[in-house]
Amino acid sequence: MYELVIVGGGPAGLSAAIYALGKQLNFLLIYEHLGGKAGRRQELAGQVATEYLAGEEAVRQFERTLSAQTDRTLNDRVLSVNHQDGGFLITTEHNGVYESVTVIVATGASARPLLVPGATALLGQGLGYSVTTHAPLLAGKTAAVIGGSSRALRGVVELAHTATRVYLIIPDWNTMGAPMVQAVQHLPNIEVLLGYQVREVVGPAHVSEVVVAYQGQEQRLQVDAAFVALGLIPNNAIVQPLAQTDDDGFIVVDQRNATTVPGLFAAGDVTTALVEQVLIALGDGARAAVSAYDYLLLRSPAQLSR
Amino acid sequence: MYELVIVGGGPAGLSAAIYALGKQLNFLLIYEHLGGKAGRRQELAGQVATEYLAGEEAVRQFERTLSAQTDRTLNDRVLSVNHQDGGFLITTEHNGVYESVTVIVATGASARPLLVPGATALLGQGLGYSVTTHAPLLAGKTAAVIGGSSRALRGVVELAHTATRVYLIIPDWNTMGAPMVQAVQHLPNIEVLLGYQVREVVGPAHVSEVVVAYQGQEQRLQVDAAFVALGLIPNNAIVQPLAQTDDDGFIVVDQRNATTVPGLFAAGDVTTALVEQVLIALGDGARAAVSAYDYLLLRSPAQLSR
Repeated sequence: MYELVIVGGGPAGLSAAIYALGKQLNFLLIYEHLGGKAGRRQELAGQVATEYLAGEEAVRQFERTLSAQTDRTLNDRVLSVNHQDGGFLITTEHNGVYESVTVIVATGASARPLLVPGATALLGQGLGYSVTTHAPLLAGKTAAVIGGSSRALRGVVELAHTATRVYLIIPDWNTMGAPMVQAVQHLPNIEVLLGYQVREVVGPAHVSEVVVAYQGQEQRLQVDAAFVALGLIPNNAIVQPLAQTDDDGFIVVDQRNATTVPGLFAAGDVTTALVEQVLIALGDGARAAVSAYDYLLLRSPAQLSR
Repeated sequence: MYELVIVGGGPAGLSAAIYALGKQLNFLLIYEHLGGKAGRRQELAGQVATEYLAGEEAVRQFERTLSAQTDRTLNDRVLSVNHQDGGFLITTEHNGVYESVTVIVATGASARPLLVPGATALLGQGLGYSVTTHAPLLAGKTAAVIGGSSRALRGVVELAHTATRVYLIIPDWNTMGAPMVQAVQHLPNIEVLLGYQVREVVGPAHVSEVVVAYQGQEQRLQVDAAFVALGLIPNNAIVQPLAQTDDDGFIVVDQRNATTVPGLFAAGDVTTALVEQVLIALGDGARAAVSAYDYLLLRSPAQLSR
């Protein structure tokens, strides 16, 4: 019986594991990929800001520390987390079932993909999912942002600092509140295309056009880059229907990163908290671990003082 | 008129400022001390765990980056934050009044001091406020923890890993829930002294005794170290009575680090969120800045896209 099982090897999961290691908890970190999105973002960027570097340096350091703890880490896929008296059963794909008093779910979220011709082939060739790391490279150029989230809007405004022209394509009108649309649509170098569908991203080797359609009418936008910001899909399957989620499937957590199930905690992009950044995910992972530790203190202090 | 004023130079304030710098906001960081408690904790510790080092490395890096931004930082004391149409008035001691659309309060909290003879003279000489950084140094020794918070309990259990004997002195019985006391009082090397008052900490050069009293009867505890964990006093004066606080004075924030006042955000030890660690404060500071940016986007996107 473990005291804590952490599911997920991204920034939130790594940070929770480092705390558990410091507290000498009897824990196990089960991960599919160590480092999560942090590493990938790093590769994409020609130039990144201080706030990203600090978070990613911590992620790399935590990764190194945990890689040496072979009895504390397991590379496997978790299929489900179920409640049982006094704790949880964690079922893995290749290594059977583990028991634990507490669980931290840090399974992250996936960017909702753009599923149109050209999108897969041109990924990384002018088509990306992270505006922030690319904005400085688009000085004097034209870009398109596809999506209606607050993150999309932030991206558009950031691009507008440097780019000559920015198209904001909002396929699903309902995903963005009216105030946000009103806020940007009168800006000089931003054009809002409300209710336009993306039909194709055109290369050949690098993005050159985004084809959109409105009421059956096609239009070709000449762009130097396009960014997909269609929102996140939380990886919540392993705790369904155990933990309460919001309408979009994000796990509801309180200010201690506790879910609605005692002993079950969650951190990072899979939760209702505003995460967005590696540094925030690291903080929330640590907080979930502090909370799990407090929960264990109340349940079995004798064990913790071993 | 600034877009954002950040009050406080600790981990939460620094992290918010780094985000604002990356987003090219028209912001000002007003601080009394840069680095907050992070630096001081470092000095105390002979040996610190990975989770502290990562957070403190980020703090030092953020401090260096912001020190170079002389037009973005101001060394002064903020006396008050008041609401006015369209924003806030921030009154400083030496530099007059600043106006800003949004404010992030990251003024931290102070440890409630132990006010008995010997406590001031022996601070740093066996008497400390941070168990975690000292626990490894107390192998085979005896220690006392003074206080009834969850943090105190965590400290006691951590010390019990290495120390031979740990006294938990809880002067105010009401500050700790009965379950927590029950949880630790039967552990073999922990002695709980419920309702005992601390009268004196005895040296001469290094802590050797803690004098306690219970119902008029004095008792001298031989110890190698003593830790004060009497709770935190939030530095909330500048937003009183503007922002809602809980019974202990911590500023109420939601999962976006927004206070009950639109445009006013808070992060770190001054808030109701569970912080405890530098890494968590860094994350919450960044989150408050993301939220302030979102607020500005809705209010004045034209300005942000300048």
